[in-house]
Amino acid sequence: MSGYTPICILPGEGIEVLDQTLLPHEERYLRLDTVAAVAEAIRSLRVRGAPLLGVTGAGGMAIAGEEQGAGPEALVEAAAELKATRPTAVDLGAMIDEALVAAEAAGPSERERQAALWGFAELALARQRERDAALARHGRELPGLEGAVLTHCNTGGLATGGEGTALAVIAEAWRAGRIERCYATETRPLLQGARLTMWELGALGIPGTLLPDTAAASLIASGQVSAVITGADRIAANGDGANKVGTYGLAAVAARHGVPFYLAAPLSTFDANTPSGEAIPIEFRGDGEVGGFGDDRWSPDGGGVYNPAFDVTPAELIAGIVCESGVLRPPYGPAIAALTAQNVDR
Amino acid sequence: MSGYTPICILPGEGIEVLDQTLLPHEERYLRLDTVAAVAEAIRSLRVRGAPLLGVTGAGGMAIAGEEQGAGPEALVEAAAELKATRPTAVDLGAMIDEALVAAEAAGPSERERQAALWGFAELALARQRERDAALARHGRELPGLEGAVLTHCNTGGLATGGEGTALAVIAEAWRAGRIERCYATETRPLLQGARLTMWELGALGIPGTLLPDTAAASLIASGQVSAVITGADRIAANGDGANKVGTYGLAAVAARHGVPFYLAAPLSTFDANTPSGEAIPIEFRGDGEVGGFGDDRWSPDGGGVYNPAFDVTPAELIAGIVCESGVLRPPYGPAIAALTAQNVDR
Repeated sequence: MSGYTPICILPGEGIEVLDQTLLPHEERYLRLDTVAAVAEAIRSLRVRGAPLLGVTGAGGMAIAGEEQGAGPEALVEAAAELKATRPTAVDLGAMIDEALVAAEAAGPSERERQAALWGFAELALARQRERDAALARHGRELPGLEGAVLTHCNTGGLATGGEGTALAVIAEAWRAGRIERCYATETRPLLQGARLTMWELGALGIPGTLLPDTAAASLIASGQVSAVITGADRIAANGDGANKVGTYGLAAVAARHGVPFYLAAPLSTFDANTPSGEAIPIEFRGDGEVGGFGDDRWSPDGGGVYNPAFDVTPAELIAGIVCESGVLRPPYGPAIAALTAQNVDR
Repeated sequence: MSGYTPICILPGEGIEVLDQTLLPHEERYLRLDTVAAVAEAIRSLRVRGAPLLGVTGAGGMAIAGEEQGAGPEALVEAAAELKATRPTAVDLGAMIDEALVAAEAAGPSERERQAALWGFAELALARQRERDAALARHGRELPGLEGAVLTHCNTGGLATGGEGTALAVIAEAWRAGRIERCYATETRPLLQGARLTMWELGALGIPGTLLPDTAAASLIASGQVSAVITGADRIAANGDGANKVGTYGLAAVAARHGVPFYLAAPLSTFDANTPSGEAIPIEFRGDGEVGGFGDDRWSPDGGGVYNPAFDVTPAELIAGIVCESGVLRPPYGPAIAALTAQNVDR
């Protein structure tokens, strides 16, 4: 369906990933067939995005089985090496642990264990693709998803390995003929919108328009977008959602103009143990990201920097939350409680 | 008062300007003593900001008198050359015309005319400084100007030649001990906040904190800023104000959190002939400014760009408008009508 493949599993051989550090200027696929190469690709952010890292971790474990034999000790060692590349990436660790369980369950022979590891890597990718596709199908019919929509940051296949979250909804709505254009913010400071979303829109054939983050408010006020849809990094029990910094401002302005604002996020994003957005810890990042990009510095040295990675959008500004199980509508408390109770063993 | 001098008039010799294209990395003053050099400095944006361009134009005319003799023909020719550098800069044209009138009024001798031109250049700068200072004094006591304030784009002396508009208010409030910190947005796409405001804050000794435009909404929501104050490019008869793109989003979020939002702008900004913001034409700028900066490109080629230079903040979001005559409070219609009627002959 989509015009690019963020990751391929090649059983018995390795994995192929798109080197995201070269985007948007160069589209280069890397064949990885050693654990060291997978670890380097993760560490250097050639592969990023929580769900895609999970699939990459599963692939890395299959490569470990191929490369080092699939004995328990060698696998545990490879698991530790791969997890250490991004210690806070929950999906990465979880998929590596699932791979270990799959190998153990496969029986004692090296060949069976290797086959089980490749099978699990393929399953992990297929599962991710199905999740993204289900989310996109649910989101496609959202009210207001017509004409042109606005999104923020990067939520496409480059982040998940499937077709993404918010961007998968946009792609589905575009294929269904409901929308004609996607506006994408640059998304300072790391410019994921300018670098990745604009590239993904191009690869998918969806007409894309890039804007500075500063222009989003007047674009919404102008009536040129019929909905705003973004991803989410964590959704509290009451529906407050943390996402890439800048999301809250978009939601606040959309509300002023009666433009629906939606979140699109997998079930794993819902955190029933966090009562509200106030309890979501916000990561603050380094000074070097602000006042410059890459080696280019625009601002004088010295002076402080305020650089939160995320902000929190209160539930009252969110018209709906799309996940692979369906669309949640306010009030979110009961809907999220029901959903997370169902999925407690997932 | 301030720690830098954007422009100096050196009668009989020339003018000295700070080369703004080298900021914030290098603080280099240029001595300009030919009309060609003044024209180049304006054309290359070494000098920018509407009021500062006006003073520079007056200085350029004095240089023309010195360089080419102060005969009417030579002056008219120099005026045309200087005006052609930035044809839409109203202050530049107006100050050049005032300089011509001053020369004409001075009498027939070359020496008298030259003296009149230098005198007018000095007057233009002194008048600008006095205007900025009056505006700053009026603004200093604004409610909420305490603790920390947030500003957008560049509104300091680099823009006016005096001490600026919004940044002059901030500097006055800081000297009065009312505020302790100024938060400055980067101000994509041209990054005037990162490049110029942070440099000016440093030169003035005011603690400054830089943030991506995307972080402004959550900063306001966090309660860490007590007021938002920006400049304005044009204020309609009903108080709607056009300013650098991004201003409207700040005002909308400030209103949600009960944080006062102020505009600071000279009387020349008020346009009684424009009934409301809807009638203010918005300039759209080139694609190259978005998805990159300078020679650095972050986004793929192709794809559209939405790049308005300004946006409009509706009067209902503006807690007060500061100008050199005082502070206007809502409802703005009658206040602006009275003000512009008084100043009709200015």
